[in-house]
Amino acid sequence: MAAKPCIPKGTRDFSPAEMAKRNYIFETIRSVYHLYGFRQIETPAMEMLSTLMGKYGEEGDKLLFKIQNSGDYFSGLTDEELLSRNASRLACKFCEKGLRYDLTVPFARYVVMHRDELTFPFKRYQIQPVWRADRPQKGRYREFYQCDADVVGSDSLLNEVELMQIVDTVFSRFGIRVCIKINNRKILTGMAEIIGEADKIVDITVAIDKLDKIGLENVNAELRDKGIAEEAIAKLQPIILLSGSNVEKLATLRQVLADSPTGLKGVEETEFILSTLSDLGLKNEVELDLTLARGLNYYTGAIFEVKALDVQIGSITGGGRYDNLTGVFGMAGVSGVGISFGADRIFDVLNQLDLYPKEAVNGTQLLFINFGEREAAFSMQVLAGVRKAGIRAELYPDCCKMKKQMGYANANGIPYVALVGENEMNEGKVTLKNMDTGEQRLVTPEELASALKK
Amino acid sequence: MAAKPCIPKGTRDFSPAEMAKRNYIFETIRSVYHLYGFRQIETPAMEMLSTLMGKYGEEGDKLLFKIQNSGDYFSGLTDEELLSRNASRLACKFCEKGLRYDLTVPFARYVVMHRDELTFPFKRYQIQPVWRADRPQKGRYREFYQCDADVVGSDSLLNEVELMQIVDTVFSRFGIRVCIKINNRKILTGMAEIIGEADKIVDITVAIDKLDKIGLENVNAELRDKGIAEEAIAKLQPIILLSGSNVEKLATLRQVLADSPTGLKGVEETEFILSTLSDLGLKNEVELDLTLARGLNYYTGAIFEVKALDVQIGSITGGGRYDNLTGVFGMAGVSGVGISFGADRIFDVLNQLDLYPKEAVNGTQLLFINFGEREAAFSMQVLAGVRKAGIRAELYPDCCKMKKQMGYANANGIPYVALVGENEMNEGKVTLKNMDTGEQRLVTPEELASALKK
Repeated sequence: MAAKPCIPKGTRDFSPAEMAKRNYIFETIRSVYHLYGFRQIETPAMEMLSTLMGKYGEEGDKLLFKIQNSGDYFSGLTDEELLSRNASRLACKFCEKGLRYDLTVPFARYVVMHRDELTFPFKRYQIQPVWRADRPQKGRYREFYQCDADVVGSDSLLNEVELMQIVDTVFSRFGIRVCIKINNRKILTGMAEIIGEADKIVDITVAIDKLDKIGLENVNAELRDKGIAEEAIAKLQPIILLSGSNVEKLATLRQVLADSPTGLKGVEETEFILSTLSDLGLKNEVELDLTLARGLNYYTGAIFEVKALDVQIGSITGGGRYDNLTGVFGMAGVSGVGISFGADRIFDVLNQLDLYPKEAVNGTQLLFINFGEREAAFSMQVLAGVRKAGIRAELYPDCCKMKKQMGYANANGIPYVALVGENEMNEGKVTLKNMDTGEQRLVTPEELASALKK
Repeated sequence: MAAKPCIPKGTRDFSPAEMAKRNYIFETIRSVYHLYGFRQIETPAMEMLSTLMGKYGEEGDKLLFKIQNSGDYFSGLTDEELLSRNASRLACKFCEKGLRYDLTVPFARYVVMHRDELTFPFKRYQIQPVWRADRPQKGRYREFYQCDADVVGSDSLLNEVELMQIVDTVFSRFGIRVCIKINNRKILTGMAEIIGEADKIVDITVAIDKLDKIGLENVNAELRDKGIAEEAIAKLQPIILLSGSNVEKLATLRQVLADSPTGLKGVEETEFILSTLSDLGLKNEVELDLTLARGLNYYTGAIFEVKALDVQIGSITGGGRYDNLTGVFGMAGVSGVGISFGADRIFDVLNQLDLYPKEAVNGTQLLFINFGEREAAFSMQVLAGVRKAGIRAELYPDCCKMKKQMGYANANGIPYVALVGENEMNEGKVTLKNMDTGEQRLVTPEELASALKK
């Protein structure tokens, strides 16, 4: 009965102070999504296991939280099946629902189920928690929010451009300096084609990524170790040493990939995206980075990722273009492009750089001290007016020691207190105290709101 | 593979149009909670079953969604236990986590776990989904949002007063005319005391509630049927016939309950709340209603409930004072008072009365028609400025038939389109078309934003 309660490992409670910061993050992302015409949807936390299973690989299936069927979930099971104690097979008998693992599969399911109501291109965003039975560790949780935006039903590269504008605007609003890295799956495919080693593309990008740390000789040695032929390594040299501006990199790639139509298409797409962005004048740098290969099997065109410049942390946003969102649900031809902001990492970056705007994380602005029943009644009248002016204000509900009431103001970071005693009531005024400076002054109820709005 | 996907029964997808309305509801409630100094928390969707079980009665335990343990959930189970097929007992072996059933128990758990970080009184609000394995039916879902606010750690009746102000403000902002009904558990206890039938209090309130429909004689007959003595029925007559203003009702109750100290305390509390509210001048009527007895066993003081005046629907908000939030987790003495807005019903009421403000549910305000690559590039430049001015605007990403693009504007309720062709580009202007009136005019990019802001 009285055992100390706890919460499931890998999950979190969010305090008022944390919630204010998280809401600032979500609201910033939301408002930029809105500016670009994205519209919000929500899907249920629970999906049918038939929707979720097989979409995240064998490992992913194991990481799904499964929900036990209500009622008699043993029905139809033989003694042999039960005694087999085959946990994963029986889980599918005991459970038909699971918690969503990401927002992409539910979105695909949504598009298929609602295809007749939707007008394409469909620009949706979704900000909801997802659940994964991962082993909890620092910075990795079993419940966390994703903030996804996708455009489906349009092949135009202008969608890629707008998503990069969104990324640029969001991080500018946060005040986080970032580098937006961009690559293209077709360029990677082209590289594999010209060296005749399509299956080694991951080994190649991993090796290239180490150039700064280990030097050209060692990169080439690693490629040799991975079984890549000397001739192919020779062909790769201009790509490994690729440097300079994006324009220069693209010029080099155009030569190296001259024999790969797919590769050239990737170069052309990247050129269009980068030159359009350059005309629009982003605040943050966009850099072509051939080592970027996230979720290689999923993406078919542009791939992007965002790194914070002033904090050592992994990618804080990523995305790309995919060809076939809904094929697995029997609806072909839905291609799209999307991004996903990593709210938990952005939270950490904003914390480390101390970038939260004061007004975004402030709660109550004014606390009325409670000196007794009559004073409280007077204060309630003043409060009504102050709140009408949009000021967040409270009256301490109990008439207790001043010290306790002031302690409440301090603990909750309330910057002003209002003192209403006999004298104030006689004059129809309020003593306003600035908790930072200690300064006190007598103001009318009307002046109170304007004093706080400053 | 290609089976048509579906979602678990009793759950819902929310379309962009529905989300805009729901966000309007949540944002209105949130902003009023903020004005009154309530601070948001969030708790995990999953709680330990040890936290949830036994808190909602035997029936409630069955309605919990239980989450199967990861890994080998059979370990430690004998063959006999397995073959017993005792679904509910084995559920507790297979599962240690469940989805939250309401926001009150997680809040109690939160207060206990974080007691050392909290400053009391603690005014928290929480807007999150809850899950119940109820049989789905019209208006009842297996996943739905609750919007709770509670003050714990203060016995002051000013908290009750403020919660009623919050209710009044929220429904005024919605434009929904409501009656706020108020009662007090102590008055009900007093009634039971004076008639010597403490266990019949529910029968009594149910019978009294029928007075308008069936008349006094039939109410008394029903009370007799329920086994209430003639003497007690006689004593109840002034209460059954209770009418007039709140002040008149309270005067009657004071006489009838003269021999019950608890009852008189309830009258006094109600008097304080009503007279304080009357001084503050609410927009909606507050009515003392003795038939109000929601969750009788839980509440210990004031009880409230809100009914919409212009729509036939059950209670759309409710709440009350309770004595012992956290006792079940071994922390005594935490009393509080709270309210909960019924978002799904409010959604229905706003729909039926067509009360959603246009600006709250509007998405994109302006669509640029795509006439080709050069025109699109020009439009992107204009768009950047328009968005900087805070206008939600899009460019149709593909250069396809005008009819299709206009269809997109119509389907998404976009009120303005911008047409940029050869002529407009030469003049550095944009043709702005009002989709409602069909009116078109040529404007500069600067004029565009101000034309739309009007």
